[in-house]
Amino acid sequence: LVLPPETALSPLDDGAKADLARTAAEMLEGLRRHGGGPDGSVTRLVYSQEWAAAMAEVEGWLSGRGLETRVDAVGTRFGRLAGVGEQVVLTGSHIDSVSGGGAYDGALGVIMATCAVGWLARALGAPRRSIEVLANCEEESSRFAGNFWGARAMLGLISPAEPDSLRDAHGVTMGEAMRRCGLDPARIPEAARSDIAAFVEPHIEQGPRLEAAHTQVGVVERVVGVRQLEFRFEGSSGHAGTIPMDQRRDALVAAAELVDLVRRTALETGDGAVATVGSLDVHPGGSNQIPGDVRMTVDFRHADEAVLDAMERQLTAGGRAAHKRHSVSFATHVRLSQPPVEFDRRLQDVMMRSCEQASCSWMRLPSGAGHDAQVIARRFPAAMLFVPSRNGHSHRPEEATDIADVVAGIEVLIGTLHQLAYVAP
Amino acid sequence: LVLPPETALSPLDDGAKADLARTAAEMLEGLRRHGGGPDGSVTRLVYSQEWAAAMAEVEGWLSGRGLETRVDAVGTRFGRLAGVGEQVVLTGSHIDSVSGGGAYDGALGVIMATCAVGWLARALGAPRRSIEVLANCEEESSRFAGNFWGARAMLGLISPAEPDSLRDAHGVTMGEAMRRCGLDPARIPEAARSDIAAFVEPHIEQGPRLEAAHTQVGVVERVVGVRQLEFRFEGSSGHAGTIPMDQRRDALVAAAELVDLVRRTALETGDGAVATVGSLDVHPGGSNQIPGDVRMTVDFRHADEAVLDAMERQLTAGGRAAHKRHSVSFATHVRLSQPPVEFDRRLQDVMMRSCEQASCSWMRLPSGAGHDAQVIARRFPAAMLFVPSRNGHSHRPEEATDIADVVAGIEVLIGTLHQLAYVAP
Repeated sequence: LVLPPETALSPLDDGAKADLARTAAEMLEGLRRHGGGPDGSVTRLVYSQEWAAAMAEVEGWLSGRGLETRVDAVGTRFGRLAGVGEQVVLTGSHIDSVSGGGAYDGALGVIMATCAVGWLARALGAPRRSIEVLANCEEESSRFAGNFWGARAMLGLISPAEPDSLRDAHGVTMGEAMRRCGLDPARIPEAARSDIAAFVEPHIEQGPRLEAAHTQVGVVERVVGVRQLEFRFEGSSGHAGTIPMDQRRDALVAAAELVDLVRRTALETGDGAVATVGSLDVHPGGSNQIPGDVRMTVDFRHADEAVLDAMERQLTAGGRAAHKRHSVSFATHVRLSQPPVEFDRRLQDVMMRSCEQASCSWMRLPSGAGHDAQVIARRFPAAMLFVPSRNGHSHRPEEATDIADVVAGIEVLIGTLHQLAYVAP
Repeated sequence: LVLPPETALSPLDDGAKADLARTAAEMLEGLRRHGGGPDGSVTRLVYSQEWAAAMAEVEGWLSGRGLETRVDAVGTRFGRLAGVGEQVVLTGSHIDSVSGGGAYDGALGVIMATCAVGWLARALGAPRRSIEVLANCEEESSRFAGNFWGARAMLGLISPAEPDSLRDAHGVTMGEAMRRCGLDPARIPEAARSDIAAFVEPHIEQGPRLEAAHTQVGVVERVVGVRQLEFRFEGSSGHAGTIPMDQRRDALVAAAELVDLVRRTALETGDGAVATVGSLDVHPGGSNQIPGDVRMTVDFRHADEAVLDAMERQLTAGGRAAHKRHSVSFATHVRLSQPPVEFDRRLQDVMMRSCEQASCSWMRLPSGAGHDAQVIARRFPAAMLFVPSRNGHSHRPEEATDIADVVAGIEVLIGTLHQLAYVAP
């Protein structure tokens, strides 16, 4: 990718903005129907009927804008606005959701990309460099523990054994689910790409920072590193009425100490560190039974891997201290370790210029959540553009973004794609 | 009940003890078959097939010893060794178990009573005052939330609406379950009794005190008061990566503070106080989700109701403090409140004399667990005799009592029943 010169589009006029607002809102409601519940929630798991229907609707949007549509070996959809040469500027996000999630996570990125590329096709015609809209098949790992499935397929990072070994809650394998959608797991390697000049992923922030700063667009600097530990404390269960306090080995008493330590570790680390005990299971779990066995997860995130290492040392030292203090056993293992990912600085510069030209409010910020773009960034220049999440809500029915912010994000994306695909030599 | 004079049996000889040991061990293994699992656990829920089979086996033991057997309106079995007059000395315990419990809780009390009354019938013939062995139908509330069902029936304390309103995990009502066992819920009032001169319940300790003191028999002074609260903290769920620490309302952080406070409250109260968080449920519960809703139970026990009141004040004050500190809502309600119950002092005296005459080691102690005897004690003189629980195990497959201790307990029960039914005028 060669940096484009300072050549910009004029800001969109009010009529164009109103058109984009109406179209994006209609698309949001259109996609919400596929997996939508009466409470506003959306459950659209990869390779489900709802997912297939959503993909068909997206294909209609793409072909209706004159884009060449294509399905890759794992079911990801692409809509191509052809330019010259091999290299492609890719934009979009994923179509699948968590269980009981909202209508915006992933879906809004697909919609913003579709609107932006549709606007460019109509206003400016064919670009120098091809642009593709991406509707990625799977990012959330909400049906299979196969996270970033679509993005990994594009990088050739799916191992041959995965389709038969990953199973959903009903025992269906990933491969079987693919075949039910007319996809052949043996062809997964064909999804790998080597032609991506840049990937720009629009997405909701999933947090409260943009809203708190009254800012419409976030230029994402990086995805923080994520580490998840599982802690297990085993003591001795027994009758809550008959075992004296000084003879107990209560696993929950030890675990509760860690919940506090996890919070303090993040606060003391500061600098954007977060740490969370999200799940904690108590066995046997009766109201009159001393807990004999507790498993808990500890999720902690920071931009600097050395800081994550220090946090892990502090947390496991706390686990060992609780083990000694309360005569319970302590075991820990790493469930997940994702290193921090820095996004392409030149792409960030293009986005920041586009923000300035669109006269929207913007700021740089990190992503605390994982995204397809961090996988694509392993091999290709990649970046992300955030729009605000109302009340910071994420993965719940209340997900929402003001439509004016959606339009601002689309305008910044239009300007960014223009620089990358029309202006850049 | 008139106190008996100091007239005692001679201690049992070794042959008699060996007979009792063999018989009791056979009975334990016999009952274990009804609901026993490969891991040594026993699950024998009231009105189940296993329960009915166990009751049939007990009936055989009773009739085989020449006792008149009878089934009351809720299915409790009695075996009567008839004396003169109306008044009855009752002994025994319950036949139902918790899910995945052991072979000794309840069952051993039925066995000890059967062995003791069988020995008296054979050695001494008819008593002055009638003796009945009790195989109570339900004590554990492990199938229905109808705790002390059999004991309440004997006291006329079951309300007419209960049989149709109590449901098991499969939606079957108590009334329906009774009918499947050939029992008519409309006849429950007929189970009420007014003829009980004394109730002596033999039972495993379910705790470690007798074993720790190398003592064979416990004379139970009282059942401590039990109170259970449910605490609920509601904060706000959200993505564990995207919500800064200072903007969180994490319900688990608040709840974890209470786990520690519950333990400290019992330790600071001292004097035998115990307190336990036995269940703690975290929602939504994903490893990358901030807990938005936590419910926990707090069980605390002490012999003095005023102390329970003070503990409750300290615990709810702690809940309110956590609510303020972590910006989460706090609600509490009382799930259960059982006042302490003192057992009959004269019956305790008879048991202590019987311990001395049997030359076994004994001590007085409170019961931290609830028992049928505490219900019977509302209207009739009642007391309990404990034998040790190996390692203090209770409500788990490892429940066990050394057979020598079982025999010591039977000998003390023989002496006690002798005093109450043969010697007492």
